[in-house]
Amino acid sequence: MTAAPQAALRWARTRRAGFLRVLRELVEIPTVSADPGHAGDVRRGAEWLARHLRRIGLPDVVIVDTAGHPVVRGAWRGAPHRPTLLVYGHYDVQPAGPPDAWRTPPFAARRRGDWVVGRGTSDNKGQLLAHLAAIEAYLRTSGALPVNVVCMLDGEEEIGSPHLPGVLARECRADLAVVSDTRMAGRGRPAIVTALRGSVTAELEVRGPPRALHSGTYGGAVHNPITALCALIGTLHDTDGAIAIPGFYRHVRELDPDERAAVAMAGPTDRAVLDRAGVTRGRGERGFTAFERTTVRPALDVHGITGGHQGPGNSSIIPPSATAKLGLRLVPDQRPDEIAAMLRRHVARQVPGGIRARLRITGRTPPVRTDPTHPAVDAAIRACERGYGATPVLVPSGGTIPAVGQLATTLGVETVLLGFALPGDGSHGPNERAHLPTLFRAADTCVWLLHELAAQDLATGDWFSASRTPATIAALELT
Amino acid sequence: MTAAPQAALRWARTRRAGFLRVLRELVEIPTVSADPGHAGDVRRGAEWLARHLRRIGLPDVVIVDTAGHPVVRGAWRGAPHRPTLLVYGHYDVQPAGPPDAWRTPPFAARRRGDWVVGRGTSDNKGQLLAHLAAIEAYLRTSGALPVNVVCMLDGEEEIGSPHLPGVLARECRADLAVVSDTRMAGRGRPAIVTALRGSVTAELEVRGPPRALHSGTYGGAVHNPITALCALIGTLHDTDGAIAIPGFYRHVRELDPDERAAVAMAGPTDRAVLDRAGVTRGRGERGFTAFERTTVRPALDVHGITGGHQGPGNSSIIPPSATAKLGLRLVPDQRPDEIAAMLRRHVARQVPGGIRARLRITGRTPPVRTDPTHPAVDAAIRACERGYGATPVLVPSGGTIPAVGQLATTLGVETVLLGFALPGDGSHGPNERAHLPTLFRAADTCVWLLHELAAQDLATGDWFSASRTPATIAALELT
Repeated sequence: MTAAPQAALRWARTRRAGFLRVLRELVEIPTVSADPGHAGDVRRGAEWLARHLRRIGLPDVVIVDTAGHPVVRGAWRGAPHRPTLLVYGHYDVQPAGPPDAWRTPPFAARRRGDWVVGRGTSDNKGQLLAHLAAIEAYLRTSGALPVNVVCMLDGEEEIGSPHLPGVLARECRADLAVVSDTRMAGRGRPAIVTALRGSVTAELEVRGPPRALHSGTYGGAVHNPITALCALIGTLHDTDGAIAIPGFYRHVRELDPDERAAVAMAGPTDRAVLDRAGVTRGRGERGFTAFERTTVRPALDVHGITGGHQGPGNSSIIPPSATAKLGLRLVPDQRPDEIAAMLRRHVARQVPGGIRARLRITGRTPPVRTDPTHPAVDAAIRACERGYGATPVLVPSGGTIPAVGQLATTLGVETVLLGFALPGDGSHGPNERAHLPTLFRAADTCVWLLHELAAQDLATGDWFSASRTPATIAALELT
Repeated sequence: MTAAPQAALRWARTRRAGFLRVLRELVEIPTVSADPGHAGDVRRGAEWLARHLRRIGLPDVVIVDTAGHPVVRGAWRGAPHRPTLLVYGHYDVQPAGPPDAWRTPPFAARRRGDWVVGRGTSDNKGQLLAHLAAIEAYLRTSGALPVNVVCMLDGEEEIGSPHLPGVLARECRADLAVVSDTRMAGRGRPAIVTALRGSVTAELEVRGPPRALHSGTYGGAVHNPITALCALIGTLHDTDGAIAIPGFYRHVRELDPDERAAVAMAGPTDRAVLDRAGVTRGRGERGFTAFERTTVRPALDVHGITGGHQGPGNSSIIPPSATAKLGLRLVPDQRPDEIAAMLRRHVARQVPGGIRARLRITGRTPPVRTDPTHPAVDAAIRACERGYGATPVLVPSGGTIPAVGQLATTLGVETVLLGFALPGDGSHGPNERAHLPTLFRAADTCVWLLHELAAQDLATGDWFSASRTPATIAALELT
């Protein structure tokens, strides 16, 4: 039986109310992987997904247990002479953050006009469901897919996918991967991402006295751990906002002028970046645009800080400790292990007498570049042209998806980063949302992607394709 | 009827089990004034105290409502030709802080050998009950007190006693005050405090983007409010630990060499201060001892800091805001209003572009010195010699008691600061405790204090007394 895209598209278009219902069910499960208190919810999310994969017609579905949260795998291998596409997505989400910053309950998926609001609607539940909608559409209409497909749905992406490599090595073979967990350039303006930043996450704890002290009795003579932590954090950047850890930029690959011109052409203006962030003035490394600072240059952010009295009122204490959560974003050719060691040395050098500092590295992900000359990129470009009616730009992204590097090293496969989030989606923040018309077109694009991958000349096993539209050449060359 | 100290002492000594039971009942009421969630408990504490004041025989007891927490007043005015002593204490307590830092429940008053452990056992419930035990002992045995007494028991000391001045002005007349809310020099070593530091408390909030942003998408181009807050806090001290707010030391009264020598003689060594704090190395203004830094020099501490992701795990965000709670301790002749204005100007100058800072002053208390030549100090010295068998030292304290300055300005009365806490009590910290033998002797000392005050030559209305023991002369002169 031949899988026909037109029938699948027609089917998908009649099922859009169903798509929203399914998205709502999945968003309502608070799959917060970072919080041990939500482990049961992450499990429920995996079970829901396994049922959903069976419901859409995938014959081979398993929940793969790990030492952390499970991976849900669903596979269709009905085309033995065709390649196997790995569809990677993640069903875990970021913590909701302060509840009063949300205008609707974070785990409720409320419809607001063309938008659906809730944690994970964009990152990544809505996007992974677009792929599943395309798979369902083929299986319902043709009983077959254009290529073999293995879905690997991760429950630990937001905490660095620590158990994914083992699962990939044991449970999976594929020729190519697609990951939809990045942003488009704008509404109706698809983008294929060609580079992701790596990351090092760490907890920095500073300890002073063994217990909270009365600040009247000891204030002035005892080093306050909050003050010490602030001073340590102050040494991480110079006054311009560049990172001041010695050696930090040593292995940053500098772009040449042509590459920078291409980035400037493909990316948003400084004004657009700051407007989307909602700030009037930026801050960062001197001599780089906002888009460069957030994609091809590294960054260091403090994700959280806590110490001493919390909540309302005051408490006149010198607290025993204070803690900060650090997140560093790396670019080629920075290596997470080397950066973690530099950070550790820097903290050890800066910590003052009478204070002990403990740095715990909680995650390491190397930066990755994808191959823009890979023929699957052509297939993705054509799929976007059909799905969105527009040729995608090829751009670097500032985000981190641990799975992409793991897929390359564990399975030796190339990944196409074809994301369907919009710049204003607010992923990781409050009131995260997804644009339903964009998600519906994403499902159409996924239908076309499977079709286009099958249409590659596979007789020779050669993925090479010479067809490339002129509009993307400049952006391709920059990566 | 004449109030006889010996009978009162005998009575008090047979009632020590009762003292512990009463302390336990009061500690079990979590009267945390800083937390609006405990407002009902503070009210219950006031009602418990009013019942207790009636139970011990005070005829005139009222709960004085304020716009905040109530003041409990109990008075005995049966000696019209004798002076009136105001006994000030506070029944509110500091927040318990992190529960897992406590070895016993904070609001349970558990007996541990000679100690009783729980929030408020030392600061200030145990100490105020020592006065009430002395009053009860006289009333039970003689039916009268040696002098008139008005007890004013404050429910807002730990939040700066904002409503006390109004209550004092309306509800109270007195000739002299005694406050037992400071520390002794050690076990069996009483101390009369001659100076208290003032304070300015403030919340410093820093705001950046209007919502939490994805640190992958915006990290490197947007100023992180946590980083900005840490940098601001970093500007508050210089590298030695002196306060770097311009003009901050302008009105600090410098001690002359004789005064410094007297402080050195009366106070603990650096080693003793740091040992009690549990730290191996101190930090503070260069050229001053630890005792000076914590008493006659000002200080600035951060009591709490909060921003971004809290709790376990990580969340890759640039948060919209971060907040620190600041506490400044002032010495003569620093004025809280002027210091608050200096802090505000400093913050305004230091806040970087793209960041908004809001400084909210939450408390202002001027520093105070008491008059060591006041005859009531002689009475207190003699009371200590009888109660503890030791002559008290006269020392400055680093703490802040807003009531003391308010008593002077509102009622025009001098205060004797005769405290019964021990250096290791851990007030404001976890496992706060009180030493029962010390509290029992405190009750004896309060019996003697009432007697000694009555024994002053009051015929001329002249409180002057020439008798002063040589051991205290040096310390007296320093203040």
